[in-house]
Amino acid sequence: MSGERPGLGRGKRRARVFGQIDPPHRLLMGPGPVNVHPRVLRAMSADMLGQFDPEMTGYMNETMALYRRVFMTENRWTLLVDGTARAGIEAALVSLVEPGARLLVVQAGRFGLLLSEIGQRIGAEIRTLDIPWGEVATLEQIEAAIVAHRPQVFAAIHGDTSTTMAQPLDGVGALCRRHGVLSYVDATATLGGMAVATDAWGVDVVTGGLQKCMGGPPGSSPITISDRAAAHIMKRRHVEAGIRGADLDEGPGALIRSNYFDLAMIMEYWSEKRLNHHTEATSMLYAAREAARVMVEEGLEARFARHRAAGAAMSAGLRAMGLTLYGQDACRMTNVTGVYIPDCVDGERVRARMRGEFEIEIGTAFGPLAGKIWRIGAMGYNAMRHKVLITLGALDAVLRAEGYVPPAGAAIEAARAVYDRS
Amino acid sequence: MSGERPGLGRGKRRARVFGQIDPPHRLLMGPGPVNVHPRVLRAMSADMLGQFDPEMTGYMNETMALYRRVFMTENRWTLLVDGTARAGIEAALVSLVEPGARLLVVQAGRFGLLLSEIGQRIGAEIRTLDIPWGEVATLEQIEAAIVAHRPQVFAAIHGDTSTTMAQPLDGVGALCRRHGVLSYVDATATLGGMAVATDAWGVDVVTGGLQKCMGGPPGSSPITISDRAAAHIMKRRHVEAGIRGADLDEGPGALIRSNYFDLAMIMEYWSEKRLNHHTEATSMLYAAREAARVMVEEGLEARFARHRAAGAAMSAGLRAMGLTLYGQDACRMTNVTGVYIPDCVDGERVRARMRGEFEIEIGTAFGPLAGKIWRIGAMGYNAMRHKVLITLGALDAVLRAEGYVPPAGAAIEAARAVYDRS
Repeated sequence: MSGERPGLGRGKRRARVFGQIDPPHRLLMGPGPVNVHPRVLRAMSADMLGQFDPEMTGYMNETMALYRRVFMTENRWTLLVDGTARAGIEAALVSLVEPGARLLVVQAGRFGLLLSEIGQRIGAEIRTLDIPWGEVATLEQIEAAIVAHRPQVFAAIHGDTSTTMAQPLDGVGALCRRHGVLSYVDATATLGGMAVATDAWGVDVVTGGLQKCMGGPPGSSPITISDRAAAHIMKRRHVEAGIRGADLDEGPGALIRSNYFDLAMIMEYWSEKRLNHHTEATSMLYAAREAARVMVEEGLEARFARHRAAGAAMSAGLRAMGLTLYGQDACRMTNVTGVYIPDCVDGERVRARMRGEFEIEIGTAFGPLAGKIWRIGAMGYNAMRHKVLITLGALDAVLRAEGYVPPAGAAIEAARAVYDRS
Repeated sequence: MSGERPGLGRGKRRARVFGQIDPPHRLLMGPGPVNVHPRVLRAMSADMLGQFDPEMTGYMNETMALYRRVFMTENRWTLLVDGTARAGIEAALVSLVEPGARLLVVQAGRFGLLLSEIGQRIGAEIRTLDIPWGEVATLEQIEAAIVAHRPQVFAAIHGDTSTTMAQPLDGVGALCRRHGVLSYVDATATLGGMAVATDAWGVDVVTGGLQKCMGGPPGSSPITISDRAAAHIMKRRHVEAGIRGADLDEGPGALIRSNYFDLAMIMEYWSEKRLNHHTEATSMLYAAREAARVMVEEGLEARFARHRAAGAAMSAGLRAMGLTLYGQDACRMTNVTGVYIPDCVDGERVRARMRGEFEIEIGTAFGPLAGKIWRIGAMGYNAMRHKVLITLGALDAVLRAEGYVPPAGAAIEAARAVYDRS
């Protein structure tokens, strides 16, 4: 009988199974993932339900309702893609863009490049609006590119963490509709921290992630889809053999080149039809639902204000240390700040000391910015006054030890002043 | 200050945010997902680490080592795909099979059909070895199909839960190598419950999931890749713009038609190079690692024996009730049993009563078997004597109330007898 117990320890094997999960308690002030809200962690410790249990489908429906609030939309089709944030991006693009169709991408950072790269792989004809890193596109530039390239789909990143810039999107949806273009925006890095105003922007499809301002873990990608986009996607509808019934018609459009990311199938799984597709990632659904509950309880405006205050305080503190911020003030993301590494210090040594001495993580950078800037976040559960102050205090101490001497006490004083004003 | 607290409840909004996650405590004896081992649930409640923190990459390396044990392989490339089980399937196929290449699929159930459907979407030329549901392919049939179709890649399902049959795979890898064919097997439903003998089979790529015999939640797909298959995939290597460096060469093969499922990129992320791709789904990694630790501590042989005993006891109990099992005895999966619904009862009413009165879930069926059989599982943390006995006792009581009267006490007695013998 005793041999039947799953997980019964056997001394002789202990050495080969490593220790239990017991990560250091670290303050994650990089561009994400960040510390998860404890309520979200607790939600994930609940046990499974059957895939089609009424309680499970009830949780799925509630999650849809909650993410309508998160995405500021009335879109019926508001659900989760089971994978990390780039799973949502690929699902959106592979379902929206038919092979051979033209896709216009705003390339203003690493994640704009990612949109083009995914588009290329799925057989789209890529056109780009190239913007120097650290800047954003104007509405006029976007319109000119649409007129010049006549794309079927327009795609942009809201907040590109590689540059810490937020692309303004007011008017973009209307512009796209006027030109008969479907529009897609990835808001992974801003969802939950800045207004992701799906309906006000008039954008057709928006995707996100949990691991930044939503205060959840990576591994689930919320998505919202307008009726117009859903109709386009349903034209490419295909029903899996083995569950096909007489009442299920196929669409006339080109077969979507992925089963896992086929949003037509995923919508039918989340619809009242409950057509079997994948097995919903139950724990991640629990996490996504709880992260949204925390956000809706807090109130969207209060939450955005909290992120704005944290970003402003962090920026003020960094500047008070005599450091130079990267990019344009007018387009700065509120939740992550790029800052030039001073010439006299080694950026990686500073990061290592921040981690080693203070258990605080700040971010490095990609591509052309690698070695030039740090990216310091204050996202989700970490967009709080004391965490901003702790981070600035630690950075001050580390820079001082590494030979860059900021004005004594200035960083925290400047950050405090921002909070006292707000 | 008080407005800064994330998640601070506001009475007026409460009605619109639903209650906290609090699922009924249900015994899941279907084909999965099943109840998760409490240690795995606890592991998931740990907070995040930065993506490239030494502790995080340490956990990733340990997870690789643990899954080598789980997959019974020496394969260096043994890692996780971030998504549900079919994410692993799609990653394997889209990375192995070039557009236009021939893919031979054993179709003996719903998940065989899924392999063909994914193959079709990625542009493969599909050839099938069609086996009636409830049967399996012989090695001779597989060889004949390989000779007839000369595929580049062979694909099969180990345990197809739609039919509850397990495809024997001894000799399949050697056969494929002899004919210069790459081989792929999905073992989602058997991994952790039956021997998934990757190296002994000689199969190149094997994928799995956590939500069945691994005793974890759905949402992560372990995969193992032979050096031969990795070399094939690396020929299709492509480095993402924005992180491309001078030392990173591209391969000559056809571009993999997915970024998310590009195993060349995923391998480089899990390698010492740590080339940035997705952000690893941290909580699901914790879950996968703990599920594997539980398995390795228990011992593989003990664990397989535990599943064998549970399956045998369940089968004996069902037969003792006068019910007829579905499929061939010789090829039965040890962890899920198909059983014909007796003519005189309504299968869905029985399932509803099992859930309503006893909080026990048993499975329905797909496609041609819908309404004809139930699928009753005993997987992972649920492959235990008392859970088998409880399920049989409940089913006996429900059938009796629904007008099918089994011999009194026979089911539990027969199951007990199996355990007493084992």
